[in-house]
Amino acid sequence: MRPVVYGVGTSDFGKQPERSGPQLAQQAVYEALGDAGVDRVDAVFAGTVFGAPGTAQRALQTLGITEVPIVTIENACASGTTAFHEACQAVSSGRYRHVLALGMETMTLHFSGPILPEATDAEGRQGMAMPSIYAMSANRYKAEFGVTDEQLALVSVKNHRNGTANPWPHHAVELTVEQILASRLIADPLNLLQCCAISDAAAAAVVGPERGNRRDVAVRATVLRSGALWDHRSPHVWGYDIVRDTAAQAYEQAGLGPSEVDVLEVHDAFTIGEIVTTEALGLAPLGAGAALCESGHTWISGRQPVNPSGGLLSRGHPLGATGLAQLAEIVWQLRGDAGARQVDGARIGLVETMGGGTAGVDGNGCVVAVLGG
Amino acid sequence: MRPVVYGVGTSDFGKQPERSGPQLAQQAVYEALGDAGVDRVDAVFAGTVFGAPGTAQRALQTLGITEVPIVTIENACASGTTAFHEACQAVSSGRYRHVLALGMETMTLHFSGPILPEATDAEGRQGMAMPSIYAMSANRYKAEFGVTDEQLALVSVKNHRNGTANPWPHHAVELTVEQILASRLIADPLNLLQCCAISDAAAAAVVGPERGNRRDVAVRATVLRSGALWDHRSPHVWGYDIVRDTAAQAYEQAGLGPSEVDVLEVHDAFTIGEIVTTEALGLAPLGAGAALCESGHTWISGRQPVNPSGGLLSRGHPLGATGLAQLAEIVWQLRGDAGARQVDGARIGLVETMGGGTAGVDGNGCVVAVLGG
Repeated sequence: MRPVVYGVGTSDFGKQPERSGPQLAQQAVYEALGDAGVDRVDAVFAGTVFGAPGTAQRALQTLGITEVPIVTIENACASGTTAFHEACQAVSSGRYRHVLALGMETMTLHFSGPILPEATDAEGRQGMAMPSIYAMSANRYKAEFGVTDEQLALVSVKNHRNGTANPWPHHAVELTVEQILASRLIADPLNLLQCCAISDAAAAAVVGPERGNRRDVAVRATVLRSGALWDHRSPHVWGYDIVRDTAAQAYEQAGLGPSEVDVLEVHDAFTIGEIVTTEALGLAPLGAGAALCESGHTWISGRQPVNPSGGLLSRGHPLGATGLAQLAEIVWQLRGDAGARQVDGARIGLVETMGGGTAGVDGNGCVVAVLGG
Repeated sequence: MRPVVYGVGTSDFGKQPERSGPQLAQQAVYEALGDAGVDRVDAVFAGTVFGAPGTAQRALQTLGITEVPIVTIENACASGTTAFHEACQAVSSGRYRHVLALGMETMTLHFSGPILPEATDAEGRQGMAMPSIYAMSANRYKAEFGVTDEQLALVSVKNHRNGTANPWPHHAVELTVEQILASRLIADPLNLLQCCAISDAAAAAVVGPERGNRRDVAVRATVLRSGALWDHRSPHVWGYDIVRDTAAQAYEQAGLGPSEVDVLEVHDAFTIGEIVTTEALGLAPLGAGAALCESGHTWISGRQPVNPSGGLLSRGHPLGATGLAQLAEIVWQLRGDAGARQVDGARIGLVETMGGGTAGVDGNGCVVAVLGG
């Protein structure tokens, strides 16, 4: 049977070293259960990358969620969306009735150093931290497609503006192209304000079979794929292939094409990421993603708004929580509950998260979900 | 449809800091695929507790396993068995046809310090590392049921003797009760040789629908439960309740009772662990688990051999790999392939793994699987 989202919830986003992962998770789960009108669940899939063993159990036991199966999942930046995917699969196969998908990460509590632990392996020691990988994509786009620094920065202008209408952003501030390009250079050509912040947060969703509640949001498709190591023979930049292939499967499963999607939350860990992703999702031909933002197409007032929540650039990027925060935004948008950042008449929404970096440089994993309709 | 195990494989076990997690995983997966006679799988569930993000993807890509869904799972010591459980569920629901369950851990590479990272939180700072928790159980059993130090040590004698017939043990040595009791005290009353070694290893299994191959081993039941925080009102020691409840569900699903099980691999991280677990699994009444070993009942020549592989005490305990190494042993036993440690006429086998400790002190999770018949 087709799964539907009964309810969603998120914690606050930002630097919150005074709050533990379980505390943040409790805030998100409490809100999601209330939104869903459900007081017990049959199983939990919890996504986190760096959470200590047992974090999900510790978070859930004070909410009375014990004894049921709890499976903690790691899939890099796509951990939360992978938990959502597994929850949807468990409902559609009839394995469980009410399933909680939870994502959480306490980045500032765990990482006081300058770089993430995963950037300390062989690639990391060569300088191949995440900003470098995305910077290489950006330089390639500048050379191949004439993408300008101003076009890159404009993605950040858009997403930060969107974020000012989000009650839970990490960075809520109106920015200009000039301010962004004047910010500290991180990995040429990406400045600080073109990079997402690592944040502390949690997000959750309750999934179940259809129950005739008009606030529930149908899940038309969820697809998970893994990527191979960076293939130097690929004509595309990092991540393009895996996002394109995952999206193709998701569109087929949903029975619709990219032009029918009304609103999207995608993985804009860096400005170039959103540009490449919108192309891989089929919103624009290869090389035309920057123009898509420049033309207004992906702004909230445009034809296909991308990251109305503010995206990772404004909301922040608590790894395991990100996918479920994206999902929560799409659910709010499709219900018409998104307030000042509401996309008019949004009927079909899409969530995309792509994770990886060092171990599987072509992308450890990608999840694309299509909702609504 | 009912899932069956097509094939299993393990790496070497022991301190192998010169080999990476992916290298160990490749050895186990290569063997499992060959044993299964399968050259591709539709999805992978990979269990690890402390593996770096992307470890599974890195291990699998050189074996050509890419693009399929790869989900990495953490469930403390039960991570590998949880991956197996998810694989079985995916086959029985018809979601995938051939699924790889993989478990891996490189303990010596990651942990050069005296204690595990999880023992550094609040409980850890109080001295509540895993040996302390089990030592409290042992002292309780000594006081309540008159269990003696010699009875505790005898479990280690049995499992180390079994391990000498295992080609891949961490500690393969015949030991006497006196030698064990003379070894260094770790947490009174548990000596060093009553504690499992933390190891480097990987193990894998390929699961699919029935295909009429007589070497395949039927999965009659797999059950996963999570536990609540240590409930000080419980009349039982740590872990008893969650193992008992998980096993009860598994027996019901398998349509048989504890007396019908011919061979078991259970979580003997410490000698007292095996004693409590055999009681919780229904092999003996509460308090009678020590006598079960003393009477010969759980030895390879006995009525219900427990840990013919040598268990965690002899084979070692590479957290994420342990559950799938237990499963591999049961598959070999039920096929009659266990060589010098073969249990005569073994028809029904059981695997039990219980993980947790600090976050969910009553047990983060437990998996019980019943195979064969």
